[in-house]
Amino acid sequence: MALQDLETMSRNENGIETAIGVLKQRFGERLKTSKSLLEQHAHTMTYIPSQLPDAVVFAESTEEVQHVVRVCADYKVPIIPFGTGTSLEGGVNAPAGGISIDLNSMNQIIKVNAEDLDCVVQPGVTREALNDHLRDTGLFFPIDPGANASLGGMAATRASGTNAVRYGTMRENVISMKVVMPNGDVVKTAARTRKSSAGYDLTKLLIGSEGTLGIITELTIRLHGVPERISAGICQFETVEGACNATIMAMQMGLPMARIELLDALQVEMINKYSGLDYRCMPTLFLEFHGTSDGVNEQVELFSEIAETVGGGVILWEKTTEARNKLWKARHDAYYAMLAWRTGCEGIATDACVPISRLAECVAETQKDAESLNLVAPVIGHVGDGNFHITPLVMMDDKDEVARAEEFIERLNMRAIAMEGTCTGEHGIGQGKRRFLRIEHGTGADIMASIKKAIDPDNIMNPGKVVGYQE
Amino acid sequence: MALQDLETMSRNENGIETAIGVLKQRFGERLKTSKSLLEQHAHTMTYIPSQLPDAVVFAESTEEVQHVVRVCADYKVPIIPFGTGTSLEGGVNAPAGGISIDLNSMNQIIKVNAEDLDCVVQPGVTREALNDHLRDTGLFFPIDPGANASLGGMAATRASGTNAVRYGTMRENVISMKVVMPNGDVVKTAARTRKSSAGYDLTKLLIGSEGTLGIITELTIRLHGVPERISAGICQFETVEGACNATIMAMQMGLPMARIELLDALQVEMINKYSGLDYRCMPTLFLEFHGTSDGVNEQVELFSEIAETVGGGVILWEKTTEARNKLWKARHDAYYAMLAWRTGCEGIATDACVPISRLAECVAETQKDAESLNLVAPVIGHVGDGNFHITPLVMMDDKDEVARAEEFIERLNMRAIAMEGTCTGEHGIGQGKRRFLRIEHGTGADIMASIKKAIDPDNIMNPGKVVGYQE
Repeated sequence: MALQDLETMSRNENGIETAIGVLKQRFGERLKTSKSLLEQHAHTMTYIPSQLPDAVVFAESTEEVQHVVRVCADYKVPIIPFGTGTSLEGGVNAPAGGISIDLNSMNQIIKVNAEDLDCVVQPGVTREALNDHLRDTGLFFPIDPGANASLGGMAATRASGTNAVRYGTMRENVISMKVVMPNGDVVKTAARTRKSSAGYDLTKLLIGSEGTLGIITELTIRLHGVPERISAGICQFETVEGACNATIMAMQMGLPMARIELLDALQVEMINKYSGLDYRCMPTLFLEFHGTSDGVNEQVELFSEIAETVGGGVILWEKTTEARNKLWKARHDAYYAMLAWRTGCEGIATDACVPISRLAECVAETQKDAESLNLVAPVIGHVGDGNFHITPLVMMDDKDEVARAEEFIERLNMRAIAMEGTCTGEHGIGQGKRRFLRIEHGTGADIMASIKKAIDPDNIMNPGKVVGYQE
Repeated sequence: MALQDLETMSRNENGIETAIGVLKQRFGERLKTSKSLLEQHAHTMTYIPSQLPDAVVFAESTEEVQHVVRVCADYKVPIIPFGTGTSLEGGVNAPAGGISIDLNSMNQIIKVNAEDLDCVVQPGVTREALNDHLRDTGLFFPIDPGANASLGGMAATRASGTNAVRYGTMRENVISMKVVMPNGDVVKTAARTRKSSAGYDLTKLLIGSEGTLGIITELTIRLHGVPERISAGICQFETVEGACNATIMAMQMGLPMARIELLDALQVEMINKYSGLDYRCMPTLFLEFHGTSDGVNEQVELFSEIAETVGGGVILWEKTTEARNKLWKARHDAYYAMLAWRTGCEGIATDACVPISRLAECVAETQKDAESLNLVAPVIGHVGDGNFHITPLVMMDDKDEVARAEEFIERLNMRAIAMEGTCTGEHGIGQGKRRFLRIEHGTGADIMASIKKAIDPDNIMNPGKVVGYQE
């Protein structure tokens, strides 16, 4: 599939029209069909072109979601769950039209179980809203994909981000969910316990299913104690390889790094310009350590020793909370820094993830490939997890450059897969990576398709995403 | 279902006979039908009566497993994977007969990727064999269910044990698996990376599926660095509630306890007698701390403060490796200590797990119930995970006692479920808990059944376990 070519799927015109009529009776003004609103509910944050739904319904309860699903099931109409719309792989597009179900009004924090280090939330709660709410409890929710995404969307995408290296991804941090299945049944996926051996792991099956198996209407998620001390700083290296090797050694020693983020020299230059910083333009690790005061000292000492052995400089500390926030704000704004660097370009998101022992090699080969294809492509990465994003900045009206970017991405994904890695560490398959899912998983993709078919025989749940199935 | 009544399933006599004939051609002396061998491959460790397979095949490679599965699929014959046979819930029984496939010869450690903190093993490798192999690497595999189980069986059961509280269960420690599916396809469930968002999580779906969806023939599992220091000891409390509350506070503070195991006074008395120890007979926590030298000191100091506030005594340290090993050996031998306590009894394994905030209440109510039913039932538990085993010691020829034990178990499982918990934290559903799976999961059990039917339409994979489906 070319970067800008999207699969066309046949539309069930009559069904869509009827379903909208039926839903209108119940939802009234909470069902919208205006062009501007439909556009807001298709893609805005990626290079992938928009494919609009036919209507948007604003649901306010599990029971309302159930109603929408039942109507869509009756008329075999696609239903696309919508959180904050920050998917990078076409997750909220509607290739066969249908109903976008906006879950942002389901934004209640239902219960904080401080003793159990968990809380129960509706899917429209964003991670920032949750952490604001938790401010005085001594607890926090660590997963931070950059965007202020909704927790439902993050679970559906199996999202992670900068501090997954210590706290895990959504896979490790969702205990249980309430999900409306394609037949309208409401399923509670698991007990509210730290572990369970009771049957198939429906929680984990639904996490990362990208809305193709059901719609999440409630989540029980793990919380963590706010560490006594947080220290952040940067450490610069002569080479990307040196930075990767420092990461490998830290992970091998079992250092509980809270964040360890790589930026290549080009990316540092971009964020310097965009965020008014003044770092030397060389491969850099952004670091954060969490622990007790003594624990952090110990970690820092060990990391400094490691860095020295692989040609790293001394750690430059951000001593105040403000300075630390500025550091991570700059990291999170890297995407905007890229777009600002080359006016009018699109950033083509990539998401390779490899075993950490192959990371230095994978990044180096990929950078070389970008150079040989004459692409501007800064690197930023969650290197403690072996996950990195190299983002070709492409003028989409330059056919030749688009073709080179396609070739680059093809080779990147194949390289990651050949290194026992994956084409996506945290963004998901969406529309953009379906072909690579099949290459990566082989017969496993058939099993996925058979599960999809068993649970959603009419293919109404976010069709055209993740995995298709033969009729 | 009464304790001793097992479901009867219809046998496919002709298919079984034909399949055995076909398999005999390939496996020769590696296919056995002698009574004694069949008995060894049905249950030996639990109160659940044995249901023998018709033949045992000793497979030595993925390709051989694939061959057996294809033959069984052709003739619609049940196939029951067998590791060390330590399942507590009827996992290796053959209620409709069929072929037991013994995987103990698949015991190669294929590769240790020290840089990535993982290794690739065949399913017949036991956890002790793996740790022996890792001895000089500075790495270890932490999960310890007590029995020296095979890693394939542990993954299939989503096993955990004493140090899951720190290192997680098999769910968190299996990165990827090679699995022979019911149609004979070999599926690699995931890349060898720390994280992935590539499609449905087949790894997690297969973990805990108890052989009902496929046969694991290779596992890539996480390893951990051997901590610089390990300290173990015991802390005694006036009440079980005090011990539970100390556990809750430690977990809430984020103390990275490596093990925190509760024994009630009766259980302490039993292990004193069986293992020649001399602890005071009162509620006791067995503790282990892992970390750097300073880190362990810090943890111990914090735990001691906690214990003091809830009426715990000082920690009695086991200062030598030998003494530490003796402590944990006694813990692991608790099952045998129980059986020895009441000659001729069976121990009816239970496995309730609740949110930790409900633990003290759940244990107290359950103990009271045992007392009111006049059952001898010691408590032992992985309390950091909210998981405890209370084990009625029952004379199986005493109908009245059996009936009281049934009532007790019914109420225990319903109590745990009512407290947002589960009937099984780590033993699995097997045959024994199928009814409770349905009570616990409701419509979720239907989803499980539809997945089973999609992947194994002829119900040949370990039939009669976990979840059934309507024909």
